[in-house]
Amino acid sequence: MEVQQGCVYLIGAGCGRMDLVTLRGLQRLRQCDVVVYDDLIDSRLLREAPPQAEQIYMGKRSGRHSASQAEISAVLVEKARAGKRVARLKGGDPFVFGRGGEEIQALQRAGIPYEEVPGISSAIAIPAAAGIPVTHRRLGRSFHVITGHTADTPDGLPEDLEALAGLGGTLVFLMGLSNLRKITAGLIAA
Amino acid sequence: MEVQQGCVYLIGAGCGRMDLVTLRGLQRLRQCDVVVYDDLIDSRLLREAPPQAEQIYMGKRSGRHSASQAEISAVLVEKARAGKRVARLKGGDPFVFGRGGEEIQALQRAGIPYEEVPGISSAIAIPAAAGIPVTHRRLGRSFHVITGHTADTPDGLPEDLEALAGLGGTLVFLMGLSNLRKITAGLIAA
Repeated sequence: MEVQQGCVYLIGAGCGRMDLVTLRGLQRLRQCDVVVYDDLIDSRLLREAPPQAEQIYMGKRSGRHSASQAEISAVLVEKARAGKRVARLKGGDPFVFGRGGEEIQALQRAGIPYEEVPGISSAIAIPAAAGIPVTHRRLGRSFHVITGHTADTPDGLPEDLEALAGLGGTLVFLMGLSNLRKITAGLIAA
Repeated sequence: MEVQQGCVYLIGAGCGRMDLVTLRGLQRLRQCDVVVYDDLIDSRLLREAPPQAEQIYMGKRSGRHSASQAEISAVLVEKARAGKRVARLKGGDPFVFGRGGEEIQALQRAGIPYEEVPGISSAIAIPAAAGIPVTHRRLGRSFHVITGHTADTPDGLPEDLEALAGLGGTLVFLMGLSNLRKITAGLIAA
């Protein structure tokens, strides 16, 4: 008997409430056999998957050992190889600090078909919720989205603070809470 | 007789096909009395408004005189003052070069309640559709969204090309087609 070809839908779940998911994302979720999800999604979204769909939690809270990126990618590959349609739900947009790029590389290497469905990114929607447009005619002709902490610099701070401070646009730091004072001090000093 | 309080939903319609609208955006559209729209939306979205809703085109194509931003804002205020729930559909995200900031300023001045519903921005979704994540671990720790032409500089080119070329992140130029050669030449020279 021929095994059905599996695939992966890499779905941006948006940020905050579940009604910020797109129609396309919801439609793919409703068609899936397996849901792989983590912490940054509204849990009500899981009820939209078919009742018989397997649900696999790959997040970091509740005292569990957190899954590595390699483990997550391995689960996606394994389930798709078994012929399943896998909905990989990610908070925000899969390609904005979501490591979606690494997941599609793993799928490409394994020859597994995938589709990326964009999501509402907190980089734009959170300032908006606070009443701040990231661009505004004459005031902000660009915006810049930067990780607020990184494993790639010795002090964990974003590079280029001086250059960023000199740009005319809006600066958005994501995941920057723990470095907030250092970032603001660096920007003011520049 | 008391007139019902009107309001404006500033809805990001997403980019490309209509199924990239969010559930929240679609829900607000289905509740409205008036739709104000322009060119950058999938026209099938208009069929989701109630059949009796008034539809007002404020776009720039088809040889018509294009509406100024002041005219668009005036229509939103007028309809809301008449007690209507107005769905203002904008391509992409209202606050990413969508001049949504100007529209909410007009609504604030007029004392009209409004709600902004974020949309999928082409700044992130178009690179994604081409297989390019705007961030990628170790390769791109930031991304930068810049208008590719502006009325605010003498040559219409974005400022800061030199500074942008020095940043480590992904650069996304929107509305840059007519200046494409000049932008790429400027970046390479920097």
